[in-house]
Amino acid sequence: MTRHPPADIGVPLTDVDTPALLVDLDALERNLRHLSTRAASLGVRLRPHAKTHKSPVLALKQIALGAIGACCQKVSEAEALVQGGVRDVLVSNEVVGRRKLERLAALARDARIGVCVDAPEHVEALGSAARSYGVTLDVLVEIDVGAGRCGVEPGEAALALAEIVARTKGLRFRGLQAYHGSAQHLRGFEERRAAIAGAVEKVRRTTELLDRRGFHCEEIGGGGTGTYAFEGSSGVYTDLQAGSYIFMDADYAKNLDKDGKPVHEFEHSLFVYATVMSTAVRERAVVDAGLKAVSVDSGMPRLAGRDDAEYFGASDEHGKLKVAPGNRSLAIGDKVKLIPGHCDPTVNLYDWYVGYRGERVEAIWPIARGPGA
Amino acid sequence: MTRHPPADIGVPLTDVDTPALLVDLDALERNLRHLSTRAASLGVRLRPHAKTHKSPVLALKQIALGAIGACCQKVSEAEALVQGGVRDVLVSNEVVGRRKLERLAALARDARIGVCVDAPEHVEALGSAARSYGVTLDVLVEIDVGAGRCGVEPGEAALALAEIVARTKGLRFRGLQAYHGSAQHLRGFEERRAAIAGAVEKVRRTTELLDRRGFHCEEIGGGGTGTYAFEGSSGVYTDLQAGSYIFMDADYAKNLDKDGKPVHEFEHSLFVYATVMSTAVRERAVVDAGLKAVSVDSGMPRLAGRDDAEYFGASDEHGKLKVAPGNRSLAIGDKVKLIPGHCDPTVNLYDWYVGYRGERVEAIWPIARGPGA
Repeated sequence: MTRHPPADIGVPLTDVDTPALLVDLDALERNLRHLSTRAASLGVRLRPHAKTHKSPVLALKQIALGAIGACCQKVSEAEALVQGGVRDVLVSNEVVGRRKLERLAALARDARIGVCVDAPEHVEALGSAARSYGVTLDVLVEIDVGAGRCGVEPGEAALALAEIVARTKGLRFRGLQAYHGSAQHLRGFEERRAAIAGAVEKVRRTTELLDRRGFHCEEIGGGGTGTYAFEGSSGVYTDLQAGSYIFMDADYAKNLDKDGKPVHEFEHSLFVYATVMSTAVRERAVVDAGLKAVSVDSGMPRLAGRDDAEYFGASDEHGKLKVAPGNRSLAIGDKVKLIPGHCDPTVNLYDWYVGYRGERVEAIWPIARGPGA
Repeated sequence: MTRHPPADIGVPLTDVDTPALLVDLDALERNLRHLSTRAASLGVRLRPHAKTHKSPVLALKQIALGAIGACCQKVSEAEALVQGGVRDVLVSNEVVGRRKLERLAALARDARIGVCVDAPEHVEALGSAARSYGVTLDVLVEIDVGAGRCGVEPGEAALALAEIVARTKGLRFRGLQAYHGSAQHLRGFEERRAAIAGAVEKVRRTTELLDRRGFHCEEIGGGGTGTYAFEGSSGVYTDLQAGSYIFMDADYAKNLDKDGKPVHEFEHSLFVYATVMSTAVRERAVVDAGLKAVSVDSGMPRLAGRDDAEYFGASDEHGKLKVAPGNRSLAIGDKVKLIPGHCDPTVNLYDWYVGYRGERVEAIWPIARGPGA
């Protein structure tokens, strides 16, 4: 089915049909520039995570500001990036299944493609696909540095897998994937610092072992929006993979800085635009953005720029706002901006970004959304 | 961007690429027949909710078994239904915004269209759109029977609004919308019974008042999968709007029957098909279905047909399963079926249903997904 963009370029923001996914372009650009500057000053490469935005347009903006390429989480995202002009893509994840592997190998005709492994089965299947397409795939061995999700144990297990990669035709051992996902949202600065210190130690031990056995790690990837400064200053990690920094969700904004205050490094630039559709029930206003318009896995969205209402409950197509008794500031037809609790799965609900500057729509960009492989 | 279906008709189920949204056609058909039979025996009309499936194909199957039409929650769903051949559609919700109202009125050229109101602003805007397209829209006055979301107070407030509808050209007063959403997932049979008894009382009082003032309610809609038998036997409600019964999510399956046992009236027919992508971390298996493949707003998915693993954590593209120490029954490449905690927002993540019978793919149906208005 065709899905129309909810607005045209040039119209006033208030004309955008709701629910819609808005991007404040000024705030976005400040976020992009800030992390580029920070990565440069830390002396590490930036390979931003495209699972956040699922958009080659945004990946190319990141690259124009110094990023070396993009990373993503699955083959369908890699396809969108390569088809959109990105020439250096890492799938920072394991890929399983013959069709997906064929699609991944086919992409390596047009771009440098990296991918992760944590088992000999991955290596064998990747090698077979690469040889069948006459391409070479770069391989990172994923190690578990604390997230307990994917990745072999640091040390000997990583070495054993690197050896298998190195002797597999069609593959090239490139280094380690060492992302500590569960450290990103630890609230306290010191907690995050300590978690990444532990990860750095595991990476250091593994790379030293690999070096002794002749395996040089050209790329050691990790670092999210919550912790990138620790990985970036570790002297060990080479590539930062932060993604959420471009949009900043409500959940990330709860992280605390060194002084115990909420971090203010990046701005909220992504909003779900919603319309008040009912005010019939006392002390309530209902907007047209519910579970199908904003992801609530990391908590309810917040209202941007107003504290006279609180989003407290979502059903499929309704968001319930609590308003103070006698509040008359929210009327049927009013539009509000919601800051999503979690940007990545919220973006995945939409087909289009509506970029605006000031009060005018300036960009409509497609989103490579979907649960597709 | 084009998104390919994850399978072709005729292939074995195990060839379906993951993540994919599977429908067990035998179980689906049993669910469809069961509620049709029940509604007929209760002597009420069935107008199943299409926000669950977002598919005219499925709505037409429901109609073929006796349903009088469909209801849905927004204009984009109504468009998909009417374009797909459904000729009697109720938007069981308020609609706000000029463009949406124009689209709704335009649909009334091809189908009988109903819609809800809970404020004079809704009535005025609907009437204007209807007159501008030379159509008549049927209007239900929504009353709040306990959900605390949309809807005017029962009684006088409903009457006042019905009077406004009746004198608005282009609109026809048809009855009441009286869905008690928050009663659906009350776990205890007696709790649900009591909640709906309260709703029935409010509806009865309102219809009696309306009748005395010359407003006959031809349609009184409500009743979800969790409570339909109470509304259906109330002697007051005329139209049941259950939706989830066709798929049955894990959350609904926690409701208890009269004897305190989990309800077994409908079968799980919807599954997220997922592949094991990593078993590197001890006592874990990781599947390729995370937050972007299954909605977790009502809890984590359950694994169908196996109790040797538990889905306990989701990130964007990963689902973490806890497996018993030494479990060797889940290997990389194995496929599992997940029962979503909440079907409606899970369906909304996908572009295609993959219907299967036995072990063979038999249907590929598009889904009118999206946050679109």
